Amino acid sequence: MDNYPSKLLENAVVEFAKLPGIGKKTAMRLVLHLLKCEKDEVALFSSTLMKLRNEVMFCSVCNNISDNEVCSVCADSHRDRSLICVVESIRDVMSIENTRQYNGLYHVLGGIISPMNGVGPSDLKVELLEQRAASGSVAEIILALSTTMEGDTTNFYLYRKLAKYGVRISTIARGVSVGDELEYTDEVTLGRSIINRTPFETIGS
Amino acid sequence: MDNYPSKLLENAVVEFAKLPGIGKKTAMRLVLHLLKCEKDEVALFSSTLMKLRNEVMFCSVCNNISDNEVCSVCADSHRDRSLICVVESIRDVMSIENTRQYNGLYHVLGGIISPMNGVGPSDLKVELLEQRAASGSVAEIILALSTTMEGDTTNFYLYRKLAKYGVRISTIARGVSVGDELEYTDEVTLGRSIINRTPFETIGS
Repeated sequence: MDNYPSKLLENAVVEFAKLPGIGKKTAMRLVLHLLKCEKDEVALFSSTLMKLRNEVMFCSVCNNISDNEVCSVCADSHRDRSLICVVESIRDVMSIENTRQYNGLYHVLGGIISPMNGVGPSDLKVELLEQRAASGSVAEIILALSTTMEGDTTNFYLYRKLAKYGVRISTIARGVSVGDELEYTDEVTLGRSIINRTPFETIGS
Repeated sequence: MDNYPSKLLENAVVEFAKLPGIGKKTAMRLVLHLLKCEKDEVALFSSTLMKLRNEVMFCSVCNNISDNEVCSVCADSHRDRSLICVVESIRDVMSIENTRQYNGLYHVLGGIISPMNGVGPSDLKVELLEQRAASGSVAEIILALSTTMEGDTTNFYLYRKLAKYGVRISTIARGVSVGDELEYTDEVTLGRSIINRTPFETIGS
């Protein structure tokens, strides 16, 4: 894909292809789609993205994305303020909110420790989390990070940082997914699910 | 995916998800990427798209995308002006240009006849093509459309429209792809490639 008949077209394709997971061919398809749209629609698309980038805020309490100084979760007086669930990104907040099983607050780290990708502890909102743990109003911190080496490393790092504040620290349960067949579950998960078995009475409670 | 913590975020995701082949999850990923970019980069992305949509032109001769009144192909005095290759879209022009095997001009229809998608002959640049055929300077028109029902319908329609101008009309060769094994070639293609066999001497010329 070269020989662009138009410099304007080439620039637009190059810009789209900078997005993650979008190659030159997909970028071309998207650009040709925009060319067929009305000018108003393209203007709306552009201005919405600009507006997002320029006006969006991050909650001063939990670092969640927000239209205000404090996000809607932190501002909600019905939520349990003694519980903090630590997650990697805003997407995880949305996923957990969609389960409707959690009524505490969040803390969005903004990433996980990953030396391979050049992400160290200083790139994450750990200090803000320590301040919250030190405030005395928090009873439990739930670490809800990915079950990867990076996630485990971050869990361990956070545990060492937070343990001194006398707050209970837990991680989300690992085990066989609901609906999965044992036969097809990987050994590590199945092994963990046996070690961390749950008393039968608590199921469904 | 609902419960967006920010209206600005939701608007941006909705806009991205309007693009073809981009669902809500992918849109979310792209939007979160843009949030991590510098403001300048997002501004450049937005303005490039706006600029493309507002400033791009279509060649008055062949309907190819262009930065000027006449596109670079039509403006090139080294090209054979007696040959016109009819294609569906700008992407096809780029594909054929990349082969470096064609030295004539193009005609971009802007689509193919597809009643299922509500595209009729009046939506295509057929009248402009007829004017070119009638001008007397064209010796041959090559129809290079997709080998689909829509492509065949459009070929047939164009043939009926253009035959009266006494111009030679051809279609690109259909046959077994270079590098393909016969065993895995579909029957229709293999059948056509036998019917339209080429004298051995012309190969490689």
